[in-house]
Amino acid sequence: MLTIEKYQQEFVAFLEAYSTVKEPKNLYEPIHYILNLGGKRLRPVLTLMTADIFSGSYNLALNAALSVEVFHNFSLVHDDIMDDAPLRRGHQTVHEKWNINTGILSGDAMLIMAYQLFENYEQTTFQALAKLFSKTALEVCEGQQYDVDFETRNNVTIAEYLKMIEYKTAVLVGAAMQMGAIVANASQQDQQAIYAFGRDLGIAFQLQDDYLDAFGDPKTFGKQVGGDIIENKKSYLYLKALEFSSEDDALKLTKLFSDKTNNIEAKVETVKQIFITSGSAEATKEAIKKYTDSAFAVLENLNISEAKKDLLKAFGNSLMNRTV
Amino acid sequence: MLTIEKYQQEFVAFLEAYSTVKEPKNLYEPIHYILNLGGKRLRPVLTLMTADIFSGSYNLALNAALSVEVFHNFSLVHDDIMDDAPLRRGHQTVHEKWNINTGILSGDAMLIMAYQLFENYEQTTFQALAKLFSKTALEVCEGQQYDVDFETRNNVTIAEYLKMIEYKTAVLVGAAMQMGAIVANASQQDQQAIYAFGRDLGIAFQLQDDYLDAFGDPKTFGKQVGGDIIENKKSYLYLKALEFSSEDDALKLTKLFSDKTNNIEAKVETVKQIFITSGSAEATKEAIKKYTDSAFAVLENLNISEAKKDLLKAFGNSLMNRTV
Repeated sequence: MLTIEKYQQEFVAFLEAYSTVKEPKNLYEPIHYILNLGGKRLRPVLTLMTADIFSGSYNLALNAALSVEVFHNFSLVHDDIMDDAPLRRGHQTVHEKWNINTGILSGDAMLIMAYQLFENYEQTTFQALAKLFSKTALEVCEGQQYDVDFETRNNVTIAEYLKMIEYKTAVLVGAAMQMGAIVANASQQDQQAIYAFGRDLGIAFQLQDDYLDAFGDPKTFGKQVGGDIIENKKSYLYLKALEFSSEDDALKLTKLFSDKTNNIEAKVETVKQIFITSGSAEATKEAIKKYTDSAFAVLENLNISEAKKDLLKAFGNSLMNRTV
Repeated sequence: MLTIEKYQQEFVAFLEAYSTVKEPKNLYEPIHYILNLGGKRLRPVLTLMTADIFSGSYNLALNAALSVEVFHNFSLVHDDIMDDAPLRRGHQTVHEKWNINTGILSGDAMLIMAYQLFENYEQTTFQALAKLFSKTALEVCEGQQYDVDFETRNNVTIAEYLKMIEYKTAVLVGAAMQMGAIVANASQQDQQAIYAFGRDLGIAFQLQDDYLDAFGDPKTFGKQVGGDIIENKKSYLYLKALEFSSEDDALKLTKLFSDKTNNIEAKVETVKQIFITSGSAEATKEAIKKYTDSAFAVLENLNISEAKKDLLKAFGNSLMNRTV
């Protein structure tokens, strides 16, 4: 087993050899650009690490890991168009640097290229990877649609919200790990277990993102603290606060999330107070713990050494303790 | 073997059973809408017909045919956004009826669904179909990019133009037929030959589209005659006219294709005259014949009965004589 940093390095070296600019340049330059913007490479690292855990050779999984990363970047390019986002990882988004049409077409090409990377595997593995990939990719599209739909709905339930973040974010984490298990010829049972581990950890991670958006340390949290509140995003914190609040407080919160105010600081402070007094902040921390525990419980069913289970736990904990 | 109309009916029945609206509705309703707008279903019919020719059972190929049609409609949805087109088959385009974000996301889902349809085949066939599909789909993206690039270039060569229409349109016709051959377990040689037949016929068809756009009968040509001239489209007719013209005429033509005029009728008439006097109209007819002949020549190498070759020829001729 390698360290996380070493998997990242191995992956980035493989990515750099893959990402060349072919003709037509206007199609492939934006792809090269977005793939080389950096980022933590969390998903492909998980693919490599999982393959290593089940087979002892992560390099079997480099093409599958790259496929996951190419797909993830496809979804960023198209989502950034839909969200009208100017920046991604501190740089211009593809549709800002080029234009919307370029963003659409380059994204389309990346989705196809993600499938093509499976052609480096023999047919049984190819089919298993492609099937899991298609199922996951379609769920990611559905999750994105739910997210869009929720913006204009005032009756989103906690169950619906959890399904949205599961589809939009968590299933790809699960699939990234299962792909590592597939190329390593792990048993169906181990494949399902590692998928569930990744998915539950993905949900916990996303819930923690919601929590840190309001209560994170501005020094260590990557984004603007309070960003979700400013953008009136119906996060887990918001939905739980509505559920727990008195009718008066709920009305106040709904009003705060429909108006545009100039006094942003006051709004953020007021909303954070409601998140705390309503019990939502605490409930969110409990939900994060529940999904993290659920992920760790799944590990018990895996046919791997205790040392390897500890490694996965350590990785999970490092993800979940990112405020420390 | 069935008649074209019968293949169309069988295909549409299969499509209707497939196309249901699941949750989230805002994702799947636009997909249902575009898939049911009609059209000639040319590509899937070719898949069914080819499977029938090589195996005697077209129904093996229904899922592959549907995949081709779903992909074709994906490309229409995204291309219509890029072209800012309000209408498709006489109805509102998806991004007009809903919005651009819906068009992007529903299109993405369709591309994935096209791959999923291959899951109905065992793994050898699955991989062969998915590989051909990915190669073709990426070429279609490249063709679309070339088409976009050509709009702002003044030095497009005939060779570049031919490559653009081959990628944007013709390779999918070839692939549609090869997919029919794949599911019918045809030999590699027959697969290559039927692909070349479809591709060359596709190029001939697209060149004929260029020709009819200027010289077609308004009663039978589906689109506005002169549309390409009005939109300053660098068609085969235009590029050949530039090549053949005197310097004076070439300048006149370039000027006509850069100005916006109010006298559209006069412009169309002047340009059509140049197309004729320069010899471009005749050269375009010759190119159409060349690619049609090339398609028919390929048939000689096929391991099928003469009766079946005659059928493919008859189909090709019916496509190419659509003015009659």
